Amino acid sequence: MTNNSGINYSFGLWTVGWQGQDQFGGASRAPLPAAESIHKLAEAGAWGFTFHDDDVVPFGSDDATRDRLLGEVKTAAEETGLTIEMVTTNLFSHPVFKDGGVTSNDRSVRRFALRKVLRNVDLTAELGAKTFVMWGGREGTEYDGAKDLHAALERYREGVDLVAGYIKEQGYDIKIALEPKPNEPRGDIFLPTIGHALGFIAELEHGDIVGLNPETGHEQMAGLNYTHGLAQALWAGKLFHIDLNGQRSIKFDQDLVFGHGDLLSAFFTVDLVENGFPGTPDGPRYTGPRHFDYKPSRTETTVGVWDSARANIESYEMLARKSAAYRADPEVQEAFKNAGIFELATPTLAAGETVADLLADTSSFEDFDADAAAQRDFGFVRLNQLALRHLIGS
Amino acid sequence: MTNNSGINYSFGLWTVGWQGQDQFGGASRAPLPAAESIHKLAEAGAWGFTFHDDDVVPFGSDDATRDRLLGEVKTAAEETGLTIEMVTTNLFSHPVFKDGGVTSNDRSVRRFALRKVLRNVDLTAELGAKTFVMWGGREGTEYDGAKDLHAALERYREGVDLVAGYIKEQGYDIKIALEPKPNEPRGDIFLPTIGHALGFIAELEHGDIVGLNPETGHEQMAGLNYTHGLAQALWAGKLFHIDLNGQRSIKFDQDLVFGHGDLLSAFFTVDLVENGFPGTPDGPRYTGPRHFDYKPSRTETTVGVWDSARANIESYEMLARKSAAYRADPEVQEAFKNAGIFELATPTLAAGETVADLLADTSSFEDFDADAAAQRDFGFVRLNQLALRHLIGS
Amino acid sequence: MTNNSGINYSFGLWTVGWQGQDQFGGASRAPLPAAESIHKLAEAGAWGFTFHDDDVVPFGSDDATRDRLLGEVKTAAEETGLTIEMVTTNLFSHPVFKDGGVTSNDRSVRRFALRKVLRNVDLTAELGAKTFVMWGGREGTEYDGAKDLHAALERYREGVDLVAGYIKEQGYDIKIALEPKPNEPRGDIFLPTIGHALGFIAELEHGDIVGLNPETGHEQMAGLNYTHGLAQALWAGKLFHIDLNGQRSIKFDQDLVFGHGDLLSAFFTVDLVENGFPGTPDGPRYTGPRHFDYKPSRTETTVGVWDSARANIESYEMLARKSAAYRADPEVQEAFKNAGIFELATPTLAAGETVADLLADTSSFEDFDADAAAQRDFGFVRLNQLALRHLIGS
Amino acid sequence: MTNNSGINYSFGLWTVGWQGQDQFGGASRAPLPAAESIHKLAEAGAWGFTFHDDDVVPFGSDDATRDRLLGEVKTAAEETGLTIEMVTTNLFSHPVFKDGGVTSNDRSVRRFALRKVLRNVDLTAELGAKTFVMWGGREGTEYDGAKDLHAALERYREGVDLVAGYIKEQGYDIKIALEPKPNEPRGDIFLPTIGHALGFIAELEHGDIVGLNPETGHEQMAGLNYTHGLAQALWAGKLFHIDLNGQRSIKFDQDLVFGHGDLLSAFFTVDLVENGFPGTPDGPRYTGPRHFDYKPSRTETTVGVWDSARANIESYEMLARKSAAYRADPEVQEAFKNAGIFELATPTLAAGETVADLLADTSSFEDFDADAAAQRDFGFVRLNQLALRHLIGS
Repeated sequence: MTNNSGINYSFGLWTVGWQGQDQFGGASRAPLPAAESIHKLAEAGAWGFTFHDDDVVPFGSDDATRDRLLGEVKTAAEETGLTIEMVTTNLFSHPVFKDGGVTSNDRSVRRFALRKVLRNVDLTAELGAKTFVMWGGREGTEYDGAKDLHAALERYREGVDLVAGYIKEQGYDIKIALEPKPNEPRGDIFLPTIGHALGFIAELEHGDIVGLNPETGHEQMAGLNYTHGLAQALWAGKLFHIDLNGQRSIKFDQDLVFGHGDLLSAFFTVDLVENGFPGTPDGPRYTGPRHFDYKPSRTETTVGVWDSARANIESYEMLARKSAAYRADPEVQEAFKNAGIFELATPTLAAGETVADLLADTSSFEDFDADAAAQRDFGFVRLNQLALRHLIGS
Repeated sequence: MTNNSGINYSFGLWTVGWQGQDQFGGASRAPLPAAESIHKLAEAGAWGFTFHDDDVVPFGSDDATRDRLLGEVKTAAEETGLTIEMVTTNLFSHPVFKDGGVTSNDRSVRRFALRKVLRNVDLTAELGAKTFVMWGGREGTEYDGAKDLHAALERYREGVDLVAGYIKEQGYDIKIALEPKPNEPRGDIFLPTIGHALGFIAELEHGDIVGLNPETGHEQMAGLNYTHGLAQALWAGKLFHIDLNGQRSIKFDQDLVFGHGDLLSAFFTVDLVENGFPGTPDGPRYTGPRHFDYKPSRTETTVGVWDSARANIESYEMLARKSAAYRADPEVQEAFKNAGIFELATPTLAAGETVADLLADTSSFEDFDADAAAQRDFGFVRLNQLALRHLIGS
Repeated sequence: MTNNSGINYSFGLWTVGWQGQDQFGGASRAPLPAAESIHKLAEAGAWGFTFHDDDVVPFGSDDATRDRLLGEVKTAAEETGLTIEMVTTNLFSHPVFKDGGVTSNDRSVRRFALRKVLRNVDLTAELGAKTFVMWGGREGTEYDGAKDLHAALERYREGVDLVAGYIKEQGYDIKIALEPKPNEPRGDIFLPTIGHALGFIAELEHGDIVGLNPETGHEQMAGLNYTHGLAQALWAGKLFHIDLNGQRSIKFDQDLVFGHGDLLSAFFTVDLVENGFPGTPDGPRYTGPRHFDYKPSRTETTVGVWDSARANIESYEMLARKSAAYRADPEVQEAFKNAGIFELATPTLAAGETVADLLADTSSFEDFDADAAAQRDFGFVRLNQLALRHLIGS
Repeated sequence: MTNNSGINYSFGLWTVGWQGQDQFGGASRAPLPAAESIHKLAEAGAWGFTFHDDDVVPFGSDDATRDRLLGEVKTAAEETGLTIEMVTTNLFSHPVFKDGGVTSNDRSVRRFALRKVLRNVDLTAELGAKTFVMWGGREGTEYDGAKDLHAALERYREGVDLVAGYIKEQGYDIKIALEPKPNEPRGDIFLPTIGHALGFIAELEHGDIVGLNPETGHEQMAGLNYTHGLAQALWAGKLFHIDLNGQRSIKFDQDLVFGHGDLLSAFFTVDLVENGFPGTPDGPRYTGPRHFDYKPSRTETTVGVWDSARANIESYEMLARKSAAYRADPEVQEAFKNAGIFELATPTLAAGETVADLLADTSSFEDFDADAAAQRDFGFVRLNQLALRHLIGS
């Protein structure tokens, strides 16, 4: 299975590189050299890859080791033609970050974390990646009294603004993408959802270059609709990157293959990403890579690692084809019309209409027959069944 | 039990007025006239009350009926001295709103919804209430394809901006408070959490007078930490109102008495509301009423209705006393210090320090001993146990 | 769309008959006479139907009304040839059941509930239905102290045994199927999952004629795997009936169309029901009707009611075809073999092998190379991708 | 803080011994020698301790190492007087168990797992422990198609019956306690709740010596009421052991200190364990140790490890005192009576009453006034508030 669609797929090196250690057990697979992963990803149909600093260079390595290891990654990228599209910082594995990085109660840790991030920003620029992801997985608490929550948000703001200011100062062509998650490994993580991150960005000085990297499973761990979240991020002009994977209901972070979680939801995610908003043809579109952040299950050997990598792309491609046919189907378009999907794109007030005009329009209230209007047939179930028929009919 | 603390408690008339009908059963209690509720709430220790238009005036009533029924409410308010502190609009009960109010796919419904809201804004001003809550409980979908999600957010923005613009135009001293909820009655509701509403408000033209009315159980229905959410709303200057109640884990909206849900979380909610951020003495404070939005369980008769109303106040008062003692305890203050709670309020960069300075500070990175720093003892469990000891000790 | 597969589909009359009233709003549809529903269900492809007493005969009706209304149902069944395959009792709508039916703290209510049930058992026999469902939706608590939990289980046992004993005494050819649900409308319902009901049945005197009626969404409301639950019920010989529908994650009871919830899970549910256990060809099979217990969304008019009814059958048929092809695919069979699916059906001890033999077998422990065995490639991700390819490929 | 109540508290050595490694990060604490843990637990007020084989003896150790390390544990037990009350087997950490132990698709793994368990049973007997816990954390799937679910349950039965049979054969005075968990580390674990385990035990040949070890957080991860679950296990005569800890809503397995999760639920758990069923004075009681299975948060150093160990005991003691006062309060007893809690202990049928008698009793149905009975005041909210007042009033 190769990628014939022209869609740009990318993978984190930590995905195929995950050795299977989890909360209750040790590694089930040997380490995978980064260069080998990059070559195999290319064979699997990837267009690009991404990594955390520590995925490639073990924490605490000396400069020579760092240069050598990063050199291997650059060489592999050149050999394969893969794009390094995003870089991110590991502020969660070493115990120094046990209470967070930029919001640790310990100021020296915060300073260290920022230095680690800034170093990585320089690397991002050097590698030509355009996106710099910040996942604050350890920024949070287990106990509500363990932090001054206002100070935590102030420090979070200070940190992100410092990094964004540095990017501008250096003239780097890089945007920051925050990655929300509700919990795990902390009991409650700050910026737990797409919404919280959007609200946070609105308070930044340099918010113009800060957006989002929403992950499928992270939103679903809060029971939220991932596609709705993507839509709000797009609407706010902040969908800078995406992390696609699979999750089955509200539980620990599963990081399954994309399509192996909530499948109907995945269909509509792909439909939005590939086909845009149905009634807003000039609306915002996601233009970044289709990035997979998943884990090959611990039960798998190296064979399963690459089967699962390919499965992400295959699932996406199948869904892309199905969603294209769905949109092109005249019966679907008619159902859209009947459901009022295009009507929702019409402003509620007419062009030039004022509130005074609305108040004066007796047809809108005084003469409005609510009981009659309540009988409108939207046909939402039928429309959903049309989607299902496209998806699993044949 | 009466209110001796000087705290301003208020209740929605729909709380004690709920007759017990639910998804699977009919009413278990007779209707309660609004005036009677108001008098009984005063006896129970309330300072104020709030209502939806339809709580007092049945949907579709003629003007004379409306005037008479609102008159009874005003009279009761005068007789009891209770403050009408907030008014809100029912855009969810009548089936005309089955696909939402301001985001219904049906434009005529959107216009009707806005008219219903505007009428209620005038009423709010007339009654002297300062807060106007908008809970968009029917704004959402069951099926991801049932709406153009961009258009929905555009219409939501249009609607809220129109109402906010009208408030300014009329010179009303009213602020709008949006109430997030993740689901129920819709499968996925727009603005599902505090965060999403903050992100939404940042896109408004008149966002300066739009803030939040977060409800305990609504955030907990998404598995989110209510106190964290309040903190982010305060940090953004947007905590305009609160809805206190109880919820037990992620399930349907329970609307239990405050304190009858997650009790330790309720303690820290009260601690934040009454005592502010521990390390940020000049930080933002919530100054509005302590408003209860709960439902007396369907098993209860009128006796239980009033027992439960009083229980909300009593629970809050007990938690307020406990949290005051917790803050005043020198051992707690020492544990705060040890945990770095005050340290987190210190900016990560020194006054006047630049990024260049940070980069030049080798103690922050090159000479930083991460392994040693990782051994810092924060004492978070001990601090939480001190809270528990204050809460249930003795 | 009609039913060409020969599969027996049935519907509760309360499903298409739901008028759309919910916790936050009134009815959006007019009542549907039972006879009309029955005729329309026949047209939609149903083979049978089911009902609660109160679906057909309003609570408190006199005998003449009851006879007339039940007569209409019988006539419609005869006219359409539909089978009345199951009957159940409404012990949840009237407020007399506000604290439960057979476990109400009020003994007079318990006696009334049992009488209501017994009357319905007679009706079930008279109508020739073979299954009698008991959903104890109000048997539970909001507050942990509100019941003696031991006494509640004793009364539940007393009630179910009394009904089962009566069935035997009367010589009726009827089996009882308990329907678990974790919560809603009560905060915590007794017998919350398939497992709890199986454990309960094991304590009954007449447990031999008592089994389960598991509902898709009810298990998923507890985050549990519905197909796993069906498998345990089959393994215990207790899968007497099923309620198919759709649910999206852990939230209120959505009762969506089957296939409109977790689609991949629905595929494996159909695969189990239609094709049995892959490695246990002589294993237990479900032989009852494919019964839908769903709600046409409140947004729908009568048009959507029937679209949604047909959608249940269509979804099931599509999944049945896909799962048949999945099982027939040699590549899938090979992947089953590779994954050890057939190997799991082989007992762990050889025929005749004793514990002493196992202890004496050094290859099983002393000489076992755990590290080598840990490298076995099960190919679970590949197998799941094969299922996905069957489901949405082509 | 010491234990003055005479209650027997015990801890798993893996609790205080957890080094803080989790899904996203490495160890934050040094290993703790078992003997040191045992001495410190004694100082903290423990009466006993428990362990997995691998907690004390690293997987794959030779016999001499095993003897030496077990010897150290025995010596420490003697020195401190602590009781080794339970032993359990680690079938989850080594990757050989990546697809489970007794239900692995690989038969050689199943045989190895049983041998590892049997060896541990002998050790349990040798040490005089009376309880043998089996937590099948890896028995499960991520993908519904990855196992023959019937075969999996057959192998589970085979495995548990083999172990139970061996115990009987050897004449050991040991009972097996199964520990349910819904998910993590597997996507769906077999025997996910108390109920499923009860249903499973009912199918065993040697089920008489097999019962349950329910863990607070495990049930709450499925949104279930732990106290309700304990009650059903007691009712079935199967509550052999308990694992107390804290969990905050439905998310990853938090293993917080007991009392640091859902506090009101913890109160009622202690109330049941210490005071029994309120209306069933001769009902079943839990008589085993109060065993804590928690994790000192990764943020803590060794100081926090012991603070947290003591916090478990202190929380339990505080709750025990509060619940004793609650039960002794005449107002509570009166509220019990009013709520019908004692009435529920009265059988629904009178002594000697037959179904025929019930059917003949017109007061139970024909003359029963349901509307009047629906007005009964149970006072459940008031009763819950009395509990809250005992818990946090003062």
